[in-house]
Amino acid sequence: MSEYHTLTAAGAVDYARQYAGLADPQSLVDALEVGDGNLNLVFKILDRQGISRVIVKQALPYVRCVGESWPLTLDRARIEAETLLIHGRYCPRHTVRILHHDPALAVMIQEDLSDHAIWRCELLTGTYYPHAARQLGEYLAQVLFHTSDFYQPPQRKKADVARFTNPEMCQITEDLFFTEPYRIHERNTYPTALEPEVAALRADGQLNLAIAGLKHRFLSQAEALLHGDIHSGSVFVADGRLKAIDAEFGFYGPMGFDMGTAIGNLLLNYCGLPGLLALREAATGREQRLQDVRELWLAFSEGFLALAAEKTADATLATPGYARLFLHHVWHDTLGFCGTELIRRTIGFAHVADLDGISEEAMRLDCQRHALSLGKMLIMAAPHIGDVDALIARIRQNG
Amino acid sequence: MSEYHTLTAAGAVDYARQYAGLADPQSLVDALEVGDGNLNLVFKILDRQGISRVIVKQALPYVRCVGESWPLTLDRARIEAETLLIHGRYCPRHTVRILHHDPALAVMIQEDLSDHAIWRCELLTGTYYPHAARQLGEYLAQVLFHTSDFYQPPQRKKADVARFTNPEMCQITEDLFFTEPYRIHERNTYPTALEPEVAALRADGQLNLAIAGLKHRFLSQAEALLHGDIHSGSVFVADGRLKAIDAEFGFYGPMGFDMGTAIGNLLLNYCGLPGLLALREAATGREQRLQDVRELWLAFSEGFLALAAEKTADATLATPGYARLFLHHVWHDTLGFCGTELIRRTIGFAHVADLDGISEEAMRLDCQRHALSLGKMLIMAAPHIGDVDALIARIRQNG
Repeated sequence: MSEYHTLTAAGAVDYARQYAGLADPQSLVDALEVGDGNLNLVFKILDRQGISRVIVKQALPYVRCVGESWPLTLDRARIEAETLLIHGRYCPRHTVRILHHDPALAVMIQEDLSDHAIWRCELLTGTYYPHAARQLGEYLAQVLFHTSDFYQPPQRKKADVARFTNPEMCQITEDLFFTEPYRIHERNTYPTALEPEVAALRADGQLNLAIAGLKHRFLSQAEALLHGDIHSGSVFVADGRLKAIDAEFGFYGPMGFDMGTAIGNLLLNYCGLPGLLALREAATGREQRLQDVRELWLAFSEGFLALAAEKTADATLATPGYARLFLHHVWHDTLGFCGTELIRRTIGFAHVADLDGISEEAMRLDCQRHALSLGKMLIMAAPHIGDVDALIARIRQNG
Repeated sequence: MSEYHTLTAAGAVDYARQYAGLADPQSLVDALEVGDGNLNLVFKILDRQGISRVIVKQALPYVRCVGESWPLTLDRARIEAETLLIHGRYCPRHTVRILHHDPALAVMIQEDLSDHAIWRCELLTGTYYPHAARQLGEYLAQVLFHTSDFYQPPQRKKADVARFTNPEMCQITEDLFFTEPYRIHERNTYPTALEPEVAALRADGQLNLAIAGLKHRFLSQAEALLHGDIHSGSVFVADGRLKAIDAEFGFYGPMGFDMGTAIGNLLLNYCGLPGLLALREAATGREQRLQDVRELWLAFSEGFLALAAEKTADATLATPGYARLFLHHVWHDTLGFCGTELIRRTIGFAHVADLDGISEEAMRLDCQRHALSLGKMLIMAAPHIGDVDALIARIRQNG
């Protein structure tokens, strides 16, 4: 254990030499700061050939883009590392590998993924990864099943619920997803032209009732150890490969939250494509996104059912048919949480390039309006959308 | 802090002199062991006039009736005392007062309630306490509302979920309520004559699906700091007064579990009365029990709604109509958990005198069959029983 101090580039190199477990630690000679997030320092540690060999990631004690006025717990670094270690135990193929971590220094060393790209960036330019959605679904099936009451002994699961108590990071989600977009709030950001749509969301009593139910489930349902922030920007892809990263929002919550966030970001891309690509490429991309949504859900649900049939440890939850019944509940949660992601990424504090990256203003507004109306539809119609094919039909109807 | 050792009667007197905070500690001279439970030593501490002044309760490191072969965590004493202190903060009128507690010694000193009687004992002899059900409903409204996400700041609530992690005691409930009664298990106890009914429960696929859902909710829904064992045997009553005791099963769970346990024990009495009292008294008692069930639910739900309207701290959960919507979900959970209590108290490990105290065998079997069929009906029909009046109509139909 060390006292906390922020690493310099030289310090990050020294740290990686000492703890990365490489056979040739002295070959590490340089560090490149590549953090584009708000919360962390991220260094690529380079060897003499300039090749990145490992990543050193350190949590900062404040939100970087805002500055030291928004302090943020360093415990999130421990939670991130421990979440990824557990997820890596159950899905090593699709979880970034953690080589070392130190809670006091809020630092971890992870495998280098320089031959991968951030999925969101690829989606923005119309680069299609035909296996990615299925692989993300497989990742979520593995990690959510194995950390749930289906598989974990009850006493160990309760200990993990306590160990992954992540109050400060959860509060960010609670505020940004469920509270601020439906209120007048200084952190909301959207063009004045959208004020009628945003005011309508605030005034919609039925919508706000559904949002309250979703927030309450986020606050109280400890179903599995979630990634907690599994959008297309926290997924690395390469040809036939996929790795989840960035699990500092990990906690025990409702499975539908991870599924909804993942599907929501595919649908944000679906909404934004007409403003990002030429007509024909956009149309192709949109069909690929709907196919991605379908494969993501089917890979998750079929993977989960197969694991449940084979590995459910709890004798009662092993009752024939129960896993399928439970997945219906996860599906309806997924639709609701997906809707909140569409809305908060359009008018809340944290936006996505799938919408904000559209240069032409009228087109950007159209796409934003589409995301809002699709988000609202998903939240309100969730109880009536029976499966993923019905969802895709609804999305096509919605425009 | 002290090293754990079991208290002798003389040791309990010394302990009470030192820690009960009485103005006249030296007046305490004797101790009477009155524990009738399985898990604890309970001493009444008497003064020179033989009057009980305080209670000293100490957890044993094993289940008493079974012996040292079934070890049980002493941490339950800390959880019990801290649960009662929190419940006492929000409902001092109906929570036993804790004067002192020591986690290392697994001991607490609580107010003497010798002028009260255990509600179950009174129900067995047909003694009616017309305010008790309403008061129990008020207690549950206060403690469940104030420990829930409606009232607690999210970060403090999460800390309390971790603090009240109670894995060993929860496992007892998980096994005894949801697992063993629906399996062949050595701890189940019932007369051979009931084997057809018990076998039918085991074989009922739809029932077992519903049980799996209830167990899963018990395992994963951290809605409020439950009492965890609020049956008529853990409630003291006196003329116009009521106090909840015995909270060693306290943990963050689904509100419907406490409500279902409470209502379930009133219905166990309803089922047993024809075997316990003469015809006319039994009929009167049964009407009182149905009235009790009605008042318990209405006092809880109306109390909860009034508190929600006045004191909800979470801006999103304060959405008009949400508390009422949430109570519908608690109501359906309540019916299901109530059904599991009726079944497990009839054929599982821990029985109740409301049924087992019936001396005439054929009558006892009739009453046990009634409890089983009522329990099964409640679990299966829960989604279709809209309110407490519909419940009472169904109970009358059921016989």
